[in-house]
Amino acid sequence: MISLNNIAEICGVSLGTVSKAIGGKPGVGEATRRRILTVAQQHNYRPNRLVHSIQRGRSMMIGVACNRFDDEFAGGMVTGIFETLFEANYDAMVIYWDRSVQKGVHVLNSLAERRVDGILMFPPASYPEGSYLDDLRSFPNPIIVLDQAWPGCEYDFIGSQDIEGALLATEHLIELGHRSIAHLGCRHTSTGEDRMKGFQKAMMRHGIAIHEKWVRDAWEPPFEDAYKIAREILEQPERPSAIMTFNDMVALQTMAAAHDLGLRVPTDLSVTGFGDLSIATPVRPQITTVKQDPEEIGRRAAQRLIERIEAKSEDQPRPKLIQDRLPTRLVVRQSTAPCQSAQ
Amino acid sequence: MISLNNIAEICGVSLGTVSKAIGGKPGVGEATRRRILTVAQQHNYRPNRLVHSIQRGRSMMIGVACNRFDDEFAGGMVTGIFETLFEANYDAMVIYWDRSVQKGVHVLNSLAERRVDGILMFPPASYPEGSYLDDLRSFPNPIIVLDQAWPGCEYDFIGSQDIEGALLATEHLIELGHRSIAHLGCRHTSTGEDRMKGFQKAMMRHGIAIHEKWVRDAWEPPFEDAYKIAREILEQPERPSAIMTFNDMVALQTMAAAHDLGLRVPTDLSVTGFGDLSIATPVRPQITTVKQDPEEIGRRAAQRLIERIEAKSEDQPRPKLIQDRLPTRLVVRQSTAPCQSAQ
Repeated sequence: MISLNNIAEICGVSLGTVSKAIGGKPGVGEATRRRILTVAQQHNYRPNRLVHSIQRGRSMMIGVACNRFDDEFAGGMVTGIFETLFEANYDAMVIYWDRSVQKGVHVLNSLAERRVDGILMFPPASYPEGSYLDDLRSFPNPIIVLDQAWPGCEYDFIGSQDIEGALLATEHLIELGHRSIAHLGCRHTSTGEDRMKGFQKAMMRHGIAIHEKWVRDAWEPPFEDAYKIAREILEQPERPSAIMTFNDMVALQTMAAAHDLGLRVPTDLSVTGFGDLSIATPVRPQITTVKQDPEEIGRRAAQRLIERIEAKSEDQPRPKLIQDRLPTRLVVRQSTAPCQSAQ
Repeated sequence: MISLNNIAEICGVSLGTVSKAIGGKPGVGEATRRRILTVAQQHNYRPNRLVHSIQRGRSMMIGVACNRFDDEFAGGMVTGIFETLFEANYDAMVIYWDRSVQKGVHVLNSLAERRVDGILMFPPASYPEGSYLDDLRSFPNPIIVLDQAWPGCEYDFIGSQDIEGALLATEHLIELGHRSIAHLGCRHTSTGEDRMKGFQKAMMRHGIAIHEKWVRDAWEPPFEDAYKIAREILEQPERPSAIMTFNDMVALQTMAAAHDLGLRVPTDLSVTGFGDLSIATPVRPQITTVKQDPEEIGRRAAQRLIERIEAKSEDQPRPKLIQDRLPTRLVVRQSTAPCQSAQ
């Protein structure tokens, strides 16, 4: 790639003149400026943003700390992030941060060394522990947390109304006459914890007993264990007539378990998902679920981060911590129906 | 964040001394070195990799040009890429390059301006056109293309044995006695084109007629149109007994169309997918499909790119262009069965 020095040599002018001409600054004759710009274009000159970053003390680069790349929901958030960063002329450096932790590397070293202006953070699958949190605290620029929070989280958070969404799904089952309702959740994450709370809230509001043996965890993505656990619940002599699940993949595994035991969904068992992922509609029965908006979560998180970065560079006081939870909405499809034993 | 200048001030030494101490270079007394390192650690000093990048003429940063982030297959490749880059101590800058093109921005500007050492490129959904290709040609460092190639592609390519995989799926249907076989493909992509070739090859090898009306395209992800097209094919008075599809999402839409028309899969219709995505096993019937290895594609692409970058910096001759296609494998599940009319 051609450098400013090369251009100066070709045009027979000083480096300073080339720098002024390309930067659009005064002090260069019109003919010289044109000649310099023509040579730069012919040789496909590209400004060096590394130099600009050092000069300006702002890298215009955002760090995105991800944990999984094959998850549709996280991918939706990333899409929203990239749309917003692109519009605002920021670039993005991505790290695979659970992997860094496994390898004993300080999670944010590379982002700090590249001088990113801020971080958009997808928390690890489980709650972050001491070394994560210490690393985060040592990072000098703004951090925004997406989707999953943790107890005592000291950062701005953008996510979904998980409690409310779970409440809607559970009340939908209750309205259909279900009283024996199980919950197949994911309580070691904050979204799982909140969806569990929404489930409990709905059950308590309607005075319906929660059976401990019917409240279980589906473990990690891709949630293959959910099949086994759903099957265990459904093989008991006394089984629930409905299962409210953590997300659409867990719902799908639950429906598979029901199918393999000869139970018809929704006639013998109603199932709800969460997320409204792209699998919710092509499967039969289509999954009744709670719609989230991952792209909007990504957009808002990126916007908020940019605001924080700009407030910081203008030495404005640090804005008050926010928790922004986007509304969720029930989408009734084919996997839920009136309770047979109630009719 | 503390700078080398700040450390020099605190320790009452010169900037040069601090730089030597931190860089592990000689010329600093042991006590002074220890004091400098202690101060650096206490104040959480982080080296500035932007400065190193400029000094070394290598950014140790790779550009990853993506088009979709919510696609499980692409996500698998990204996972493999990040594993490999992490091991080799490279960082990754990600761009959303179809979006850049829509906005009329030169697709690779930001990667060139950040001086990335090379690019891992996920081609756009359709074949790249003139301005894409011109932009790529103006990029001075190595480029590796993943998954989707295009006619006349001038870069190293890492992907799957798509033709062979499609041949396996089609021959599996033929062995089950099917003769009326449709193909629901995606011919505006290279993988779609190759899977179509594999289908044709198998049909020709066994002397089976291909019906033009049964060879259709499923359009773009998430392939909702596939449902409509599968339905059109299955509503005809004369319908196929099997459909070989472009990927697992198209297979799922095809199974939904069959279900809604009262056709049982696999009794009345056999369906094959491609990819072995995480939806292939929790759905009922489980999808017979062709297994690919997206993570290994990502790992090999990143390894190849690093080799090319290092060969370049050592002024070795440019290595011969490669096309590395990873094997695919048939996985027989529940969505295919012997042809009823053949029995």
